[in-house]
Amino acid sequence: MPSASSLYAAIDLGSNSFHMLVVREVAGSIQTVARIKRKVRLAAGLDSDSRLSDEAMARGWQCLALFSEQLQDIPTDQIRVVATATLRLAANAEAFLSRAQNILGCAINVISGEEEACLIYQGVAHTTGGSDKRLVVDIGGGSTELVTGSGAQPGALFSLSMGCVTWLERYFGDRHLGKDNFAAAEQAASDMIRPVASKLREQGWEICVGASGTVQALQEIMMAQGMDERITLAKLQQLKQRAIQCGKLEELEIEGLTLERALVFPSGLSILIAIFTELNISSMTLAGGALREGLVYGMLGLPVDRDIRSRTLHNIQRRFVIDAEQAERVRALAESFGRQVSHSWKLDERCRELLNSACLIHEIGLSVDFKQAPQHAAYLVRHLDLPGFTPAQKKLLATLLQNQVNGIDLALLSQQNAVPPRMAERMCRLLRLAIIFASRRRDDTLPAVRLHADDDALQLTLPNGWLEAHPLRAELLEQESRWQSYVHWPLTVS
Amino acid sequence: MPSASSLYAAIDLGSNSFHMLVVREVAGSIQTVARIKRKVRLAAGLDSDSRLSDEAMARGWQCLALFSEQLQDIPTDQIRVVATATLRLAANAEAFLSRAQNILGCAINVISGEEEACLIYQGVAHTTGGSDKRLVVDIGGGSTELVTGSGAQPGALFSLSMGCVTWLERYFGDRHLGKDNFAAAEQAASDMIRPVASKLREQGWEICVGASGTVQALQEIMMAQGMDERITLAKLQQLKQRAIQCGKLEELEIEGLTLERALVFPSGLSILIAIFTELNISSMTLAGGALREGLVYGMLGLPVDRDIRSRTLHNIQRRFVIDAEQAERVRALAESFGRQVSHSWKLDERCRELLNSACLIHEIGLSVDFKQAPQHAAYLVRHLDLPGFTPAQKKLLATLLQNQVNGIDLALLSQQNAVPPRMAERMCRLLRLAIIFASRRRDDTLPAVRLHADDDALQLTLPNGWLEAHPLRAELLEQESRWQSYVHWPLTVS
Repeated sequence: MPSASSLYAAIDLGSNSFHMLVVREVAGSIQTVARIKRKVRLAAGLDSDSRLSDEAMARGWQCLALFSEQLQDIPTDQIRVVATATLRLAANAEAFLSRAQNILGCAINVISGEEEACLIYQGVAHTTGGSDKRLVVDIGGGSTELVTGSGAQPGALFSLSMGCVTWLERYFGDRHLGKDNFAAAEQAASDMIRPVASKLREQGWEICVGASGTVQALQEIMMAQGMDERITLAKLQQLKQRAIQCGKLEELEIEGLTLERALVFPSGLSILIAIFTELNISSMTLAGGALREGLVYGMLGLPVDRDIRSRTLHNIQRRFVIDAEQAERVRALAESFGRQVSHSWKLDERCRELLNSACLIHEIGLSVDFKQAPQHAAYLVRHLDLPGFTPAQKKLLATLLQNQVNGIDLALLSQQNAVPPRMAERMCRLLRLAIIFASRRRDDTLPAVRLHADDDALQLTLPNGWLEAHPLRAELLEQESRWQSYVHWPLTVS
Repeated sequence: MPSASSLYAAIDLGSNSFHMLVVREVAGSIQTVARIKRKVRLAAGLDSDSRLSDEAMARGWQCLALFSEQLQDIPTDQIRVVATATLRLAANAEAFLSRAQNILGCAINVISGEEEACLIYQGVAHTTGGSDKRLVVDIGGGSTELVTGSGAQPGALFSLSMGCVTWLERYFGDRHLGKDNFAAAEQAASDMIRPVASKLREQGWEICVGASGTVQALQEIMMAQGMDERITLAKLQQLKQRAIQCGKLEELEIEGLTLERALVFPSGLSILIAIFTELNISSMTLAGGALREGLVYGMLGLPVDRDIRSRTLHNIQRRFVIDAEQAERVRALAESFGRQVSHSWKLDERCRELLNSACLIHEIGLSVDFKQAPQHAAYLVRHLDLPGFTPAQKKLLATLLQNQVNGIDLALLSQQNAVPPRMAERMCRLLRLAIIFASRRRDDTLPAVRLHADDDALQLTLPNGWLEAHPLRAELLEQESRWQSYVHWPLTVS
């Protein structure tokens, strides 16, 4: 049973905010117990001689006094405190740090840009799915990290002295969102990136992952506007145009952009556009974690799995005591059904993997109650932290689980933005059929089902006499064909 | 990890419906994996010579064929099949049973009324909270069981040959809801009860618990209409008047009464009124389980705890890996706060116990996610099966957990119907303060807090200098006093 001494804390003294994350380990996954963030705006307190003002230091100390009250009870070797860009830079950092360490009662590690980049990479590697050959981008308040890597191993590491706070001061100081402001900001960012671009491109990557508030804000905007979750240069340019139309920072209004993120959004956007352009990035998705997660996973000594999503699904099965054999049975069936209709239905690799994932946790709702188990499953999946899955993927999984049995909600299937609605519908049909056939929880009672798809018409052929010998599943199939017909999915059973 | 062989099945061949319940054990609690119910209406197929019609038998066999498909994979010693009133009575029961046993592949036990009463008592004892000196009432389709008992031990056991289906046929056969119909039905029921009333009253009870559809329907009606969850004779008489106003069974319409339960509601109501009158019952609450639960808990060999609610809370703590030390810390604090204001606030035993329960699982939401943890807690508690807690009590717990921190939703606190809204508000305030003071997860950092209540004005006194030395909790208390002021709960801290 956990207590204060089983907690771990990661503190990050950033240029814009100080963050404290307190976690504990539950069945191989990390559970957040407390999270405190204060906008200390340290970077804003740097004068032209790179000296922190007394006021800025006082804001920082005050925040650390809050943190320290919680930290006192956590063993020192389970605490990591790092400071980044502004404290790397400040000429009088020592003055701030010595008192800060007194307040916290533990050491503060001012990390180099490369160390920061490395920790961010670890945080991403532990929490982000997809190919493990990646480019990681993190736009902070005072620095931007660019890292390539493969699996747990970072390759090229760069930390550039530009961030959404410093770029805001420098290029949007007049609070104007003009074409010229953006052009200057992008130009300056490009000048920073160009010298390191070839090194990064040499290393190469299969996926590009973005951490930090700017990418988080983009994710929220795209979710709110029902767009596909992949960030592309075209979308960034569109948002820039929209910002320019608004004219002024105070009047910036974009559906899905929260007030909290609005101030540094244009500056972050300009840096991101420069990164996309200089590195010729085709698309980017949101990371599941960054610096603080790197610190926490590092302390806990959890290995970086090749396949984050598998680890997540396995942990969820354990935590919610899901019948793993049954989950695997449904997964194997759905996969075999998928293969039989692959010619006509053309589910791509991404769809197949997400369908597998849905199968592996489809019974999670039973951990709440049998009644409305599909609704409970959807609720849990929508809200659980699922390292390796993007928000859009979580929404798709929740939608599939909600529609695993009984009435089908077509609107939900088309509202998710991880895969095209048509594909989501097909995944849903395969999941539902697999659940019906596996309902006896035994491998040796599965019939040799033949499935044939002609566009949306699905033809299910069973061995002679099977339906008569299996009245329960026969009844389920009959109902199922009715449910599917209500949403105009032709399903015939013979 | 569970598989088909770790499942348990309880089947109940009732007079109105056949039920199958399939469960598995998860951390000392029972998780439902499948539940199938078919309205076989066996009792309706009895002719005046007490012979089952061929059609009724065919309906029964067809249903059992469905059940059997699922049963095949469950070890025989983990299956219990019982038949009740109609099959006790039917002259040709043997003909039905021999084929039925062939279909199921296992023995069917036609239990006597006393055995049925005993199993129902066990089911209630395992799933129902409050005092363990109880009277249990179960109105079935063809028989009604009345049992007194203490703890796991039944005392007087009676099974009477009246049920909501037989009474429907006999006294509401004309589908008319007249005064006379009710009078005749009640009279006949009273005549059945009177001979056993004195034996039951001799044994005595502290609480009265009702199982079966009639009591379930009453519970739903009272929840829908926002009434206190205790069933009283006055409420039953009121509902009878309402039914008489409707005039005909087909036109019966009461807010909260579902179509499914409507047909046998008036007949069940008349039996219940007779029971209340003859046994002089002051109030009744809904049981958490009955016959099938008795079968299942019996098979699993779980002991009947003195305190069902404690067992439930402990199981929930284990299943959702709740920090039990912290939960106990918050509970002890809330209790001590409650004692300090007991003179002014007058929380009764029931309130104190429910506040304790809320404390013990207040962190359950963290198992979903830190963000919106209070909402997640409320969702889980609202939907989890919590043996020992009535639906109204679950709703109160959910409401308290949702309001454990941040903004306070007064409407929610007054919409629950387990305790008076004013009491719920006070419980909420104690919970919130306990959480703040315990936030460091250590006993030795708790200050000597003095709490004084003058009606709704709460005065919190802390040792000199404590606030200055504990800036995090000082900030939390300052915010808290603001949150409470928004809903006009005066809270001063000094």
